[in-house]
Amino acid sequence: MGNIFSDRISDVPRSFIREILKLAVDESVISFAGGLPNRDLFPLEEIKKATGKLLEESGKDVLQYSSSEGFAELREWIAERYRSKHCHVHPDNILITSGSQQGMDLLGKTLLNDGDNVIIEEPGYLGAIQAFSIYKSTFHPVPVNEEGIELDPFHEIVSNHYVKIFYCVPNFQNPSGISYSEDNRKSVAHMLKGRPTILVEDDPYGELRFLGKEKSSFYQLLPENTVLLGSFSKTVVPSFRIGWIVANNEIMEKLVIAKQASDLHTNYFGQRIIHQYLKDNDIDGHINKIRQAYGKQRDAMVSAIQEHFPAEISYTHPEGGMFLWVTLPAGMSAMEIFKEAVKQKVAFVPGDPFYVNRKDVNTFRLNYSSVDEETIRIGINRLGNVLKTMIAGR
Amino acid sequence: MGNIFSDRISDVPRSFIREILKLAVDESVISFAGGLPNRDLFPLEEIKKATGKLLEESGKDVLQYSSSEGFAELREWIAERYRSKHCHVHPDNILITSGSQQGMDLLGKTLLNDGDNVIIEEPGYLGAIQAFSIYKSTFHPVPVNEEGIELDPFHEIVSNHYVKIFYCVPNFQNPSGISYSEDNRKSVAHMLKGRPTILVEDDPYGELRFLGKEKSSFYQLLPENTVLLGSFSKTVVPSFRIGWIVANNEIMEKLVIAKQASDLHTNYFGQRIIHQYLKDNDIDGHINKIRQAYGKQRDAMVSAIQEHFPAEISYTHPEGGMFLWVTLPAGMSAMEIFKEAVKQKVAFVPGDPFYVNRKDVNTFRLNYSSVDEETIRIGINRLGNVLKTMIAGR
Repeated sequence: MGNIFSDRISDVPRSFIREILKLAVDESVISFAGGLPNRDLFPLEEIKKATGKLLEESGKDVLQYSSSEGFAELREWIAERYRSKHCHVHPDNILITSGSQQGMDLLGKTLLNDGDNVIIEEPGYLGAIQAFSIYKSTFHPVPVNEEGIELDPFHEIVSNHYVKIFYCVPNFQNPSGISYSEDNRKSVAHMLKGRPTILVEDDPYGELRFLGKEKSSFYQLLPENTVLLGSFSKTVVPSFRIGWIVANNEIMEKLVIAKQASDLHTNYFGQRIIHQYLKDNDIDGHINKIRQAYGKQRDAMVSAIQEHFPAEISYTHPEGGMFLWVTLPAGMSAMEIFKEAVKQKVAFVPGDPFYVNRKDVNTFRLNYSSVDEETIRIGINRLGNVLKTMIAGR
Repeated sequence: MGNIFSDRISDVPRSFIREILKLAVDESVISFAGGLPNRDLFPLEEIKKATGKLLEESGKDVLQYSSSEGFAELREWIAERYRSKHCHVHPDNILITSGSQQGMDLLGKTLLNDGDNVIIEEPGYLGAIQAFSIYKSTFHPVPVNEEGIELDPFHEIVSNHYVKIFYCVPNFQNPSGISYSEDNRKSVAHMLKGRPTILVEDDPYGELRFLGKEKSSFYQLLPENTVLLGSFSKTVVPSFRIGWIVANNEIMEKLVIAKQASDLHTNYFGQRIIHQYLKDNDIDGHINKIRQAYGKQRDAMVSAIQEHFPAEISYTHPEGGMFLWVTLPAGMSAMEIFKEAVKQKVAFVPGDPFYVNRKDVNTFRLNYSSVDEETIRIGINRLGNVLKTMIAGR
């Protein structure tokens, strides 16, 4: 047929993670490569009850087409939860999306012209790189560390370019597990104040803090520039694909048009079940259980790393979320380590897909949320042996 | 903030239907304006059973993240159903989408560069106009009539332009209710054979035939050019938003990348429920019930029109689906009729949103699937009175 495809689709990276996971399907491989929540914590019995009750009480109402904005009572619940955390959000400023991934797609659709400047974190969330690539944005990656985004390069870019979007995951970032300090957030807010840049604050993990103190949201520090993305995937269940966007009236009007054009509305049955579940259960109690479990899994991973990894290797110290980030000595390739690790029956995600235009990086991502503590210890031990051998053999 | 928006979003028409429906919220208004399936026919008890069984038997499996392509067994079911209708489709060539609306968005993403030529039907499906507008396509509307698409203008456009996509709804089209004859389909296939144009055959209503003989699918007549869109919204339930795309390997590979970037995957719980429902029930028996009911509702509308509409008014004779299309005498405005009709407590959708670049058209859409026969008779009587008065007063 010749090249029938759009230019944009050739700019989008294939999911490297999917490709790589094919190498690690063997059941005997301990995988830290996933990005899945711990399924043992899914509230199955409560979801069963909510679903049964809903079908009994609301019957065919929950099977019909619904509104593009999303179920009104679910939007009210979300607004109320923000208010309880001192974020003043009106339900009209909430759009229910097909997962927060769709939030990025809708923002790309409504905000980005070809070549528009987008600041992303380095390393950054792969899903955001994919979503914004579709709209042919020009990426400006800015490094992140345990304090947050590096302020000097950030300031230089916002001073010298019209930056349309700054996309960030300030709490327990995927892939690195880092969080922005309170000071770092304030500096970023100060630098963007009065500028036309939209700060997209993606916060799927914010509720999953097991250490340290909660920080201010950019939505509190810089409300006029901030668009919030949220999700029930990490706090309730992922398979329903229920997320949301919070945006001002002007942006919301365009987002609703984009939503209609994209999929009419988010699956309504799932919205109703989530809402029923939230109404009938103690969500804070449930989230506390997840926090405690992930805290223990994270601790198991950190202790095993301390015990088994060579001293040349550094790693992040997440205070929440699902991921931890490892840095090898300069010049080493995480991809090479990966190939050897899979032979030794342990897997992770080499850092490559979390960078724009960088290959054979010396960093990789470890997930602890989907692996139990005992398995974490065994897997990190295996990985430690691989690292020792590879470092010794350099 | 100044204009922060993308050029593309300003090209997308707002949903005129949503706007107009706000004028007809009054409960005493009989509305033929909706596009909803008849909720009385939703298989509520069967969905309850399927959902309960699934949560009991598969538990947390149905709550976790899943694959971008969709649930394998559901894709196999769809492929098998096509095979039973002599369409040879491999499950690998099926992608499960968030409704067939998302199919259009993904095709726009993967195929359309700015300004690419797209042939649409005139009148055409509003959701397709919205979806492709996002990708800044150049629309070439070609009129449709009770035989199908008008072949002369169609041939002229495909001969003189590189047409990227021809989007059509050959069975019981929304908004007009018309279907392409067998000859018309063959002529279109012949004209496109050997050309690089992708024929997007959107077929949400194909199973809902209550009159006449089933026609060949473009997928049978022109397999190398055709991409199929399907949906469970009209045959099972709409609220789950489960549709699909059938495409060749080359296109499928790009569609999966676009799907990942758009929303990772379609709501998995809904996919599993639909599959469980299909496995445990007689879907043909169920679809027959819908066919019979819609056939009666259509007949009620046609007889009422014959009785109450002035002779100057023409209308289509759908053999399936949910809609019927009315043409007023030249020069009359359906929008003006609409305003008067709402005062007389009856509503429909003026034709305007189904055209690109035309206003104050003399056509309108009537939906019969969501109104019972008795109410259809009362509503069409009211509308007939409005039409008589307006025609007499010209």
